[in-house]
Amino acid sequence: MMDIHSPDHSSDPAPWQTLATHAAFQNRWLQVLVDDVVLPDGRRYEYTRLQGAGIGVGVLGFNSNGEVLLEREYRHGVNQVVWQVPGGLAKADEDLQLAGLRELAEETGYAPAVITPQTVRYLGMIWDNPGFSPMCSHIYAVWDLTPTGKTQRDPAEFVTLHWVTPAWLKEAVRSGAIKDRVVVAAVAYLLLNGLMT
Amino acid sequence: MMDIHSPDHSSDPAPWQTLATHAAFQNRWLQVLVDDVVLPDGRRYEYTRLQGAGIGVGVLGFNSNGEVLLEREYRHGVNQVVWQVPGGLAKADEDLQLAGLRELAEETGYAPAVITPQTVRYLGMIWDNPGFSPMCSHIYAVWDLTPTGKTQRDPAEFVTLHWVTPAWLKEAVRSGAIKDRVVVAAVAYLLLNGLMT
Repeated sequence: MMDIHSPDHSSDPAPWQTLATHAAFQNRWLQVLVDDVVLPDGRRYEYTRLQGAGIGVGVLGFNSNGEVLLEREYRHGVNQVVWQVPGGLAKADEDLQLAGLRELAEETGYAPAVITPQTVRYLGMIWDNPGFSPMCSHIYAVWDLTPTGKTQRDPAEFVTLHWVTPAWLKEAVRSGAIKDRVVVAAVAYLLLNGLMT
Repeated sequence: MMDIHSPDHSSDPAPWQTLATHAAFQNRWLQVLVDDVVLPDGRRYEYTRLQGAGIGVGVLGFNSNGEVLLEREYRHGVNQVVWQVPGGLAKADEDLQLAGLRELAEETGYAPAVITPQTVRYLGMIWDNPGFSPMCSHIYAVWDLTPTGKTQRDPAEFVTLHWVTPAWLKEAVRSGAIKDRVVVAAVAYLLLNGLMT
């Protein structure tokens, strides 16, 4: 059995060698890069990949009653209103935990009453799609949410807030009502860390 | 509390209205679309979104010893070798379960000994990033994997296979060694359905 934390990866597939990179599209949100690469068997291959505009953060928050704060937001990529948790992109050089708490406060008007290792916890990071892009979300759990009394949303953010029980959250993930990878991953991390039963 | 399966979404944010769509980039893997949209408050906004080349499928498989089949594969989007499960894109009009079993067999040379509701089970679907794109993965669990004796990999697929225990898998997700959203979601679904303890 491979050691999780000190793995022997000597049998790993070789990385590819990138000979040239062509920026095929770029705007403020997205860059499409087409690489001329050499595969491990020596063949040349053209590979399309993406760069995003920053590092994603997401926050699953509980209030003092143990309820979870979810959002419903219209997401244009899937042309529907979806369940998700507060989050967004960290600013350049911004601490990721602070970015998560900033997005939480801006989108929902809630913040943990105090910031301690017991009220703010890093859960983990997932890639959107490691084949395509380094775009990812760092996921935090926050407890003891209290209202700050104000929100400050981005120009294209229109969200409604919903408090649900952990039982509701788990059934919504299990049954497929929640399809956002950040929420699903947050539930996995909370269960695996014994932070939600 | 909102009903999960018959929710009252009358308070939902309004969808956006798309006035025009401009294809800013296209190749066989990816299309970048820039929409001219009207936000719920009437303002115009330019929104960048992506279309992929198909519907993703992923398969987490167990052998008769209860071990899980993982892969390590170099993924160029993150420029590293990562832990993942077999999967890929369904072909046009291909049944998604058959697509998952095809990708499993092609990449790993394993298949369930028989296909029954007990050996092949749909777990759920997650979007890569619903803000950007409808790209998604439909995730299946398969039991009773047996070797078929042959693999048939895509031109740019170089993978190594690894059998791990459920305890190893859970600790690898919890600790962050596994960062692929499909594997993390599969663990969430297995735990929530009582299919892995």
